[in-house]
Amino acid sequence: MNYELSNIPERTSKPRQTGYTMVMDKGLSIREAEDFLSVAGQYVDIVKLGWATSYVTPNLKEKLAIYRDAGIPTYFGGTLFEAFIIRKQFEDYLRVLDKFDMTFAEVSDGSLEMPHEEKCEYIRKLASKVTVLSEVGSKDDQKIIPPYKWIALMQAELDAGAWKVIGEAREGGNVGLFRSTGEVRSGLVEEILTKIPFEKIIWEAPQKAQQVWFIKLLGSNVNVGNIAPNEVIPLETIRLGLRGDTFDHFLKTTK
Amino acid sequence: MNYELSNIPERTSKPRQTGYTMVMDKGLSIREAEDFLSVAGQYVDIVKLGWATSYVTPNLKEKLAIYRDAGIPTYFGGTLFEAFIIRKQFEDYLRVLDKFDMTFAEVSDGSLEMPHEEKCEYIRKLASKVTVLSEVGSKDDQKIIPPYKWIALMQAELDAGAWKVIGEAREGGNVGLFRSTGEVRSGLVEEILTKIPFEKIIWEAPQKAQQVWFIKLLGSNVNVGNIAPNEVIPLETIRLGLRGDTFDHFLKTTK
Amino acid sequence: MNYELSNIPERTSKPRQTGYTMVMDKGLSIREAEDFLSVAGQYVDIVKLGWATSYVTPNLKEKLAIYRDAGIPTYFGGTLFEAFIIRKQFEDYLRVLDKFDMTFAEVSDGSLEMPHEEKCEYIRKLASKVTVLSEVGSKDDQKIIPPYKWIALMQAELDAGAWKVIGEAREGGNVGLFRSTGEVRSGLVEEILTKIPFEKIIWEAPQKAQQVWFIKLLGSNVNVGNIAPNEVIPLETIRLGLRGDTFDHFLKTTK
Repeated sequence: MNYELSNIPERTSKPRQTGYTMVMDKGLSIREAEDFLSVAGQYVDIVKLGWATSYVTPNLKEKLAIYRDAGIPTYFGGTLFEAFIIRKQFEDYLRVLDKFDMTFAEVSDGSLEMPHEEKCEYIRKLASKVTVLSEVGSKDDQKIIPPYKWIALMQAELDAGAWKVIGEAREGGNVGLFRSTGEVRSGLVEEILTKIPFEKIIWEAPQKAQQVWFIKLLGSNVNVGNIAPNEVIPLETIRLGLRGDTFDHFLKTTK
Repeated sequence: MNYELSNIPERTSKPRQTGYTMVMDKGLSIREAEDFLSVAGQYVDIVKLGWATSYVTPNLKEKLAIYRDAGIPTYFGGTLFEAFIIRKQFEDYLRVLDKFDMTFAEVSDGSLEMPHEEKCEYIRKLASKVTVLSEVGSKDDQKIIPPYKWIALMQAELDAGAWKVIGEAREGGNVGLFRSTGEVRSGLVEEILTKIPFEKIIWEAPQKAQQVWFIKLLGSNVNVGNIAPNEVIPLETIRLGLRGDTFDHFLKTTK
Repeated sequence: MNYELSNIPERTSKPRQTGYTMVMDKGLSIREAEDFLSVAGQYVDIVKLGWATSYVTPNLKEKLAIYRDAGIPTYFGGTLFEAFIIRKQFEDYLRVLDKFDMTFAEVSDGSLEMPHEEKCEYIRKLASKVTVLSEVGSKDDQKIIPPYKWIALMQAELDAGAWKVIGEAREGGNVGLFRSTGEVRSGLVEEILTKIPFEKIIWEAPQKAQQVWFIKLLGSNVNVGNIAPNEVIPLETIRLGLRGDTFDHFLKTTK
């Protein structure tokens, strides 16, 4: 840090199991990725190349190398997995993971219907090759999954070999864990936490108010995702009680 | 593309008449313009220097050269044309187009009142020198133009020599084609399409939901505009059915 | 300017007392700061490193040097001052200002409760070392300060040695001077202006509609703040009547 302040909440350090920050890159240029890493690299644990943007972005290999050289793993958004599955091209998907030396993969069913046992089977297959993140929640704001079912799905996916499970919110933060207004489905989150260990969950929380809500509930070292590249520094200050939103939260709890 | 997926909708290629992507640059630096082109250049058909930002941005010649070298034409936003017109400086405007070697120009009346015959006269004059884009719709959200009038205005402007007509939405996507909430005036769009060929229209659609709406209605190769530089890659995935919003739209229609 | 237009409102030039543009940098990389300055540097009067982002951003010295070389002063957001105060580390705060050769400082009480005389005492102490900006308004949208009190606070802080006072709005523009919807508390602003000279106030106005409102009320050379780096060029066009929002405002008033 650039100077000393007392009473700053403790942050885990990399490689971490909690306090994870997952960033969404939806098409940064090489130089923009470098810029982002020069400021925020030390606070970022993993980068997702959003949905299937990797299909159309040029210089993909070069960008993946930049993240690799910074010691930050990357993965393709779950929608890419689904795009291969719905086309019955799972074997091709495996070849893509190989071709780009991916060490993580996301399994999701946010845009298609798939029997849950089949999803778990994909998790099992992929978990033998890479670290698997699996995602629960639909991208369709009309499809509401009740809390008990979120829990059952998450547990089954962890049992199938997922390293962590992701709670869906999209880039906008207006589905899945959240209402269309962006408001947290707080009852859902609290019920999930009665059954699933909080270190096993990454909460997609692209909006500041959502990040604040999770940090107030679960502390500085909650795992959050879908953070925009230029929001990592602001997020870090919220984790440390150094932005108005959490300014006295940690002082109260550490006093 | 970085890997192969079957059943991807066909995209036109440059130079194209449909499937056009018009991007708004509201003040990128030289390096930011280079970054943008390095990622999205192949998907961008034309760049608008938003409204009269060209008046105050330094290094204008250098930036125009960067777009020219990338084979992407540029034009000054219609508000600049209007700023010259309301000052009775049309001749000066022509000199500005000359000075900067512009090959496209926009004629609009979004911020001033002008008899439509006069607007068409400007289109005719300019069309003898450059390719003219003309824009229909007010920047004032209180001025609602009924559908039959949109059609008459668009047709007269095409007849006067406009290469394509643009449907107004501003940077925010909350006037003209859209309600102040951003919702599409769908009846308006559908009525326009009964009379004006869809390849002659560029729909300003800065918000994702607006882009999705037009792509679902008119297909991957609809012409859209006022796209932010960092939204070109996301837009391209929506055009290809590779984002949640259009994930099964093309699969259904191509099956 | 890149070409000539008649009837453009007069703009003050740097160093200016009015027409001030304060920009918020919430974590730009070195190269992003350079890019920003290459486009907007001539229009920016001062840069705030938002709240306590300076604690976590790497290369702080290097970035401060870039702004210094461009002739643009910088200061740490008021939340940093408050973070030191609430920890009873005011002397450490002074050392931080020294260490980084800061010539400006912000005194605020947006995130904590402090007797106003104590706040004024800090202003007095700091004003003997640096130029002080003091800020009025809470970051808590539930704490509404009545207009007469805004005036009393502002006047006392100017009397204590503040160079200018800042009206609070946060990065979002949804507290303090504004309702949670972003709408201006116009009665508040107008009442403040009956007592406090407009050149002594910097209005935080991050949203375009807020900037437009202040420019229409107070002219091209109103002081505004919390401008995002990529909104400086758009703001400059609004000041000059070269964007739709103020297109005819200055023509009417200068005719």
